[in-house]
Amino acid sequence: MGETHIERRRRLAARVGERDAGALLVTRLVNVRYLTGLDSSNAALLVPADGPAVLATDGRYAGMAAQVCPELRVVVERGAAAALTALAAGGGITRLGFEAHDLTVERHGELTARAEIELAALGRLVEELRRVKDEEEIGLLREACAITCRAFDAVLPEIRAGVTERAVAIALERAMVDLGAEGPAFESIVASGPNGAIPHHHPGGRELQRGDLLTLDFGARYGGYHADMTRTVAIGEPAAWQREVYDLVRAAQAAAVEAAVPGAETAAVDAAAREIIKAAGHGEAFTHGLGHGVGLEIHEAPLLGYDRTGRLVDRVPITAEPGVYLAGRGGVRVEDTLVVRDGGPELLTTTTRDLLVL
Amino acid sequence: MGETHIERRRRLAARVGERDAGALLVTRLVNVRYLTGLDSSNAALLVPADGPAVLATDGRYAGMAAQVCPELRVVVERGAAAALTALAAGGGITRLGFEAHDLTVERHGELTARAEIELAALGRLVEELRRVKDEEEIGLLREACAITCRAFDAVLPEIRAGVTERAVAIALERAMVDLGAEGPAFESIVASGPNGAIPHHHPGGRELQRGDLLTLDFGARYGGYHADMTRTVAIGEPAAWQREVYDLVRAAQAAAVEAAVPGAETAAVDAAAREIIKAAGHGEAFTHGLGHGVGLEIHEAPLLGYDRTGRLVDRVPITAEPGVYLAGRGGVRVEDTLVVRDGGPELLTTTTRDLLVL
Repeated sequence: MGETHIERRRRLAARVGERDAGALLVTRLVNVRYLTGLDSSNAALLVPADGPAVLATDGRYAGMAAQVCPELRVVVERGAAAALTALAAGGGITRLGFEAHDLTVERHGELTARAEIELAALGRLVEELRRVKDEEEIGLLREACAITCRAFDAVLPEIRAGVTERAVAIALERAMVDLGAEGPAFESIVASGPNGAIPHHHPGGRELQRGDLLTLDFGARYGGYHADMTRTVAIGEPAAWQREVYDLVRAAQAAAVEAAVPGAETAAVDAAAREIIKAAGHGEAFTHGLGHGVGLEIHEAPLLGYDRTGRLVDRVPITAEPGVYLAGRGGVRVEDTLVVRDGGPELLTTTTRDLLVL
Repeated sequence: MGETHIERRRRLAARVGERDAGALLVTRLVNVRYLTGLDSSNAALLVPADGPAVLATDGRYAGMAAQVCPELRVVVERGAAAALTALAAGGGITRLGFEAHDLTVERHGELTARAEIELAALGRLVEELRRVKDEEEIGLLREACAITCRAFDAVLPEIRAGVTERAVAIALERAMVDLGAEGPAFESIVASGPNGAIPHHHPGGRELQRGDLLTLDFGARYGGYHADMTRTVAIGEPAAWQREVYDLVRAAQAAAVEAAVPGAETAAVDAAAREIIKAAGHGEAFTHGLGHGVGLEIHEAPLLGYDRTGRLVDRVPITAEPGVYLAGRGGVRVEDTLVVRDGGPELLTTTTRDLLVL
C-alpha cells in the first residue's frame, strides 16, 4: 500500500499549495488512515505543500506505524496535533491549513495558544480526494459486499414467523464475521411488519408474523471498507398491496442504478427513482435521499438527494436505496452498493432483487 | 427515569447560573442522553439557568423523544444546535455556554454567524456531574458487570491450546450478547504469549500455546453503561516467573482496591498499586495509569494515574487495572470495575482473581 499512500499524499500536497498554505494538519483519524494506512485512535499527519509528510502518534501505535508506513517520519507524542503544529511553526510555515470540521474549539485554542502560526480552515480537502476510489479500494469494497451477500444467503433459512428482529440482526452480524468480515459496517436494521415504516428502526423483541414484510439493512466491513445492502422479504404469501409497493420500489431502484453514470447530476439520479414513486402516488412516503457514497466510512461524499448538487464521475461507489414507508402498515426498501463506471454501473451487491417469500 | 433526568438538569442549571451564562447549549450526544434519556445521533439540549430545558432532534427521533422525555419541549429540526441557539437569542439570552470540547470550529462558526449571541466555553460541566452516579446508574453498571462475569465463565471451557485469539474474542462477545448485553462495551483485547506485553493488543490469528499467559480484557454494555474487566489466565502449568508476576500484579490490584475510598487522592490510589510493582523491580513495566471512571462511556472522569489530581467520593465507579508488560515474554493485567463507597468499595466484577490454569 506504500505507493498508494504516497500518491494520495502527493495529490493532497498539490491542493494544499493551491490554497496558499504551507501545509495541512490532518487530524480526522479516518483521513490519517486514508493517507498513511495507519488505523489509530490518536494520530495526526502534517502534509506540507512541498517536502515529506510527518506522522505523529502515541507509543501504542509506534510499532504499527513503522510497519504500515515505514517511509514516513514518525513523531511519537501523545499530543499529536500540538507536536505537528510546533514542528510546522519551527520549520518556517506561517499559514497552516486545518480541518475545521474535525478540530474542536478547545483543541483549536490549545494549538493557537502555543504556536506562532496562522491556522486556516481549508474545507474538506481529504474527503474530496476520497470521493473517487482507486482499484485497490474498490477491491476491498467488492469483498465487503460479497461477504454481505453470502451472509444474507446463510441467514435466510433462519428467517420465519416467531423469530425476533433482534435474533435476525444477531444472526446476520455473526454470519458476516464468520465469513471474514472485521465486523458489521453499521448497526443492522431489521424491521418487521409495522416497524418497516421506520427507516432506521432498531431491531427489537417483535416476533416475525405471517403477513409481514421484513426489511433487512446491513453490511460487512472489510479492510476498513463498508458495504451497505437492503432487501425486503415477505413472511408468507404477500398481500396485493405489499407486492405492489415492492414492485414499485424495485422499479425505482433499477431506474436510479441505470441513471448513475459518469457526468450525471446527483439530483438527477435521485429523481430517476423519486419520479417513479411520485407517479404512483407515494412521493410523500419516500422520506429520505436516494443514497450516499461508501468507503472508509459508511456515509461519505457524495450524498444523493433531491436537494444535492454535484456530478458523478468514474470510480465513485454509492448506494441506491429508495424506500416507501406507510405508517402503521409497513415499508419496503431495496438498496445496492454500486460503483459508477465509465462502462456502466458495477453492482457490488448481487443478491436477487426478486421478492423472496419465506 | 423522568424524575432522575429532571433532577440532573436542575443541578446543571444551577451550575450554569453560577457561571453567569443564560443557558448551556449541550451538543455532546452522550451528555444529551444523560440529561434526557434520549439516545440519538443528532440532538442538542438547551438548559437555561432559569426555566425549562428544550430538546432539539430530527424527525427520526421525534417519536422516541416523546416517549422517553414527554416532559420536555422538543424542537424537530435537523440543525439541532443552530435551532436552539436561535431560540436562546430570541429569548433574550446574551451569553450562551457551549461545550468547547465537543463543538467543532466549523459548527461554532456556523452558530456565531447566524445568531446575535456570545458563545462562552464553560468547561466540562456535564461530565463533572456524571462523575458521581446515582443508584439507578450503579444498578445498570452492576448488571453490565454481572453479564461480563457470566460470559467469562461461559467461554472458559473453549479456551485451550490451538484456538486463536480472535476466536476467543468472538466467543466472549457472543456470550455477552446471548446473556443480555446490548453489545461489547469496547473492542475486546485477547493477548496471548508475547502479545500479552502489548497492553492494547488487537486479537489476531495467533493460536494459544501451552506455556502462554493469556490476557482477556472485555466487558458488556447494558442500558448504555459499560463494564470493564481483565483476567490473565495460564494455558497449561505456568513457569515460576509467570506465577511470580501474576502474584505481584494481583497484590498490587488488591492494594489499589483497598485504597479506593472516599477522600483518597486519585494519585494515591494509583501509587498503592505502583509502589508494590516498583518494589519488585517492575516499575518500568507498568506503563499506564491505574484506571478510569466508567459509565455512559467506557473511559470517563476520573482518570487515575500518578500524574492525576482530584479526590474520590462516594458513588464513583472506577476501574483498577495495574499490569506488568515484559517485551517478548508476555504480560499480566488484573482489572475490576468497582464503586467507591462510604462503607468500602463495592466490587462489581466478581470473577475469581486466583490464577486459573486451563
